[in-house]
Amino acid sequence: MAPIPNARVLFNSIPESYPVPGETTVYDTTQTLDLETVPLNGGFLVKTLVLSVDPYFRGRMAPAEKKSYIRSFQIGAPLDGFGIGVVLRSENSAVDSGKYIYGPSFFHQEYTVFPDLGALQIIEKHPGLPWTVYLGAAGMPGGTAFVGWKEHADAKQGEVAFVTAGAGGVGALVIQLAKESGLKVIASAGSEEKVEFMKSIGADVAFNYKTTDTRAVLEKEGPIDIFWDNVGGDTLDAAIEFAAFNGRFIECGSISGYNTGHSAIKNWNLINPKCLHIHGILVFTLFPKYAEEFYATIPAKLASGEFKYTEDVTKGLEKVGDVILAVQKGTNKAKAVVVVAEE
Amino acid sequence: MAPIPNARVLFNSIPESYPVPGETTVYDTTQTLDLETVPLNGGFLVKTLVLSVDPYFRGRMAPAEKKSYIRSFQIGAPLDGFGIGVVLRSENSAVDSGKYIYGPSFFHQEYTVFPDLGALQIIEKHPGLPWTVYLGAAGMPGGTAFVGWKEHADAKQGEVAFVTAGAGGVGALVIQLAKESGLKVIASAGSEEKVEFMKSIGADVAFNYKTTDTRAVLEKEGPIDIFWDNVGGDTLDAAIEFAAFNGRFIECGSISGYNTGHSAIKNWNLINPKCLHIHGILVFTLFPKYAEEFYATIPAKLASGEFKYTEDVTKGLEKVGDVILAVQKGTNKAKAVVVVAEE
Repeated sequence: MAPIPNARVLFNSIPESYPVPGETTVYDTTQTLDLETVPLNGGFLVKTLVLSVDPYFRGRMAPAEKKSYIRSFQIGAPLDGFGIGVVLRSENSAVDSGKYIYGPSFFHQEYTVFPDLGALQIIEKHPGLPWTVYLGAAGMPGGTAFVGWKEHADAKQGEVAFVTAGAGGVGALVIQLAKESGLKVIASAGSEEKVEFMKSIGADVAFNYKTTDTRAVLEKEGPIDIFWDNVGGDTLDAAIEFAAFNGRFIECGSISGYNTGHSAIKNWNLINPKCLHIHGILVFTLFPKYAEEFYATIPAKLASGEFKYTEDVTKGLEKVGDVILAVQKGTNKAKAVVVVAEE
Repeated sequence: MAPIPNARVLFNSIPESYPVPGETTVYDTTQTLDLETVPLNGGFLVKTLVLSVDPYFRGRMAPAEKKSYIRSFQIGAPLDGFGIGVVLRSENSAVDSGKYIYGPSFFHQEYTVFPDLGALQIIEKHPGLPWTVYLGAAGMPGGTAFVGWKEHADAKQGEVAFVTAGAGGVGALVIQLAKESGLKVIASAGSEEKVEFMKSIGADVAFNYKTTDTRAVLEKEGPIDIFWDNVGGDTLDAAIEFAAFNGRFIECGSISGYNTGHSAIKNWNLINPKCLHIHGILVFTLFPKYAEEFYATIPAKLASGEFKYTEDVTKGLEKVGDVILAVQKGTNKAKAVVVVAEE
């Protein structure tokens, strides 16, 4: 068999503000490989099926020397992120051909030879779910919602939760976990379509923050016992203002500032008199504690329809740059995934 | 016995910035009472001995309609705060003459008829301590340090704590609790005298924030596992910047902004990736949980010298206004108390 192209999405330059498709990242088809003869050196060859595009990508588009919890993308190298692929050939006795591989550092390229499993794992799919869901509600975003909620929400029936970016991969599961705990849920997102989805999964009060004043909603529907923060900025200041005594804040992200700079927070001084409890979370530090419970419950609930999910699926590796920008701008319709290849 | 003056300190006007003695508060000697004949109506007459002046007073100089965890001082009425007095006469069988009364709402006046105990309690003094200490290290400020530390510090030997206002009533006990837990302690305050005191009670690194750059100290001596925040503002931003992963912040006060407005906090977005845990505390909600342990241990340690304390004692009720201003400016030398009368 002759060598074939191994298309890749390369990190090309550090963006100043929003990433620019074709400039920040470039689609490259110059690399080739022969699937039958590429040396494995004890490793295994994987065909990439689906890739996840997430808000945290923006933080990885920083200079490599910047201190962070996660390493930066490397100029000239492929992007990487959560992904799933199928094993085509293997010289590793623990990884048979035909098995499916899931992990946090899948290169954004069609084929990859992995030297060993490392942080990867062999994954089995619930027959009622597509692979894409294992990058969303049954994957890292769903896992983030699950571990943050379990670890820090301290939810009590009848309390009020406010969830931002409630139609996203994380937020949608948070809404449903909050409803399962018997809470009243206020949820915000940036389009009417997202508002309708949030209502469909149980949000008691769902609103479009671009057309509805957040403070007016919180004043009427609050105070807030639990705030799930995916956005930061002025929405966060509003949440502090309308937080209940002993409120819990789960700090999951601050996408309002990722591309244009973080605004300063004016209401910190209310944390003391309101006895607020603010927790920053990262999924990879908490997930081991809850992984077994997560996989034992969430995929089955998603497959049965007890928990709902939605996805914004884009076909074609060449679209990754556009999807990254959509996620940063919030113009994606739901959790963004890219299908690189069918099986 | 003829009526005698009952001198009082009245709240006179809401300050715009720092309180102004004689204007914000006025010393008034127009009221009189007859100690032998004043009607008790089932209550008891108390002679005020010592009064506490604390940073939180500034928050009470707000318009009465402002929502807060604590009610505002009332224009034309005496100030009130933590105090101790001796019972002169009583018609309450639970409160004998000669007993000592401690509570959070002692009027700033020489004599008071209390209708019942309410939030007051009968208090006994360790023979090795003066009453003033029961308004400081063995009182509300010490109790604040104790409950905040016990509830939220999660201290592990070898960790690093940073304590601001470390020579104050709260901070000084926090330093000593941190040293007792086996931590390295960085402590800041606003004068050389306070720096020397912080060193004398065990701070490993003590500095004057007015003459030494906080960030330079934290960069060299951090990162910080535990931050005890009494001041807020730019020092808080510096603490976030130099916080360790999984750091705990105990938000006890933000005096940097009480008189001149709170500055916005720039580094909130680091809470998420650093997985920081921020806890606002109020002593009155946590104290019941720890009161028995506090009174069983802290006064004895203070009396034996195992824990050290310092006080800035002012004699004379007429000085209250000056002491309030000194506490807000930080020109007091240590925990401020006013001695109204000897026994």
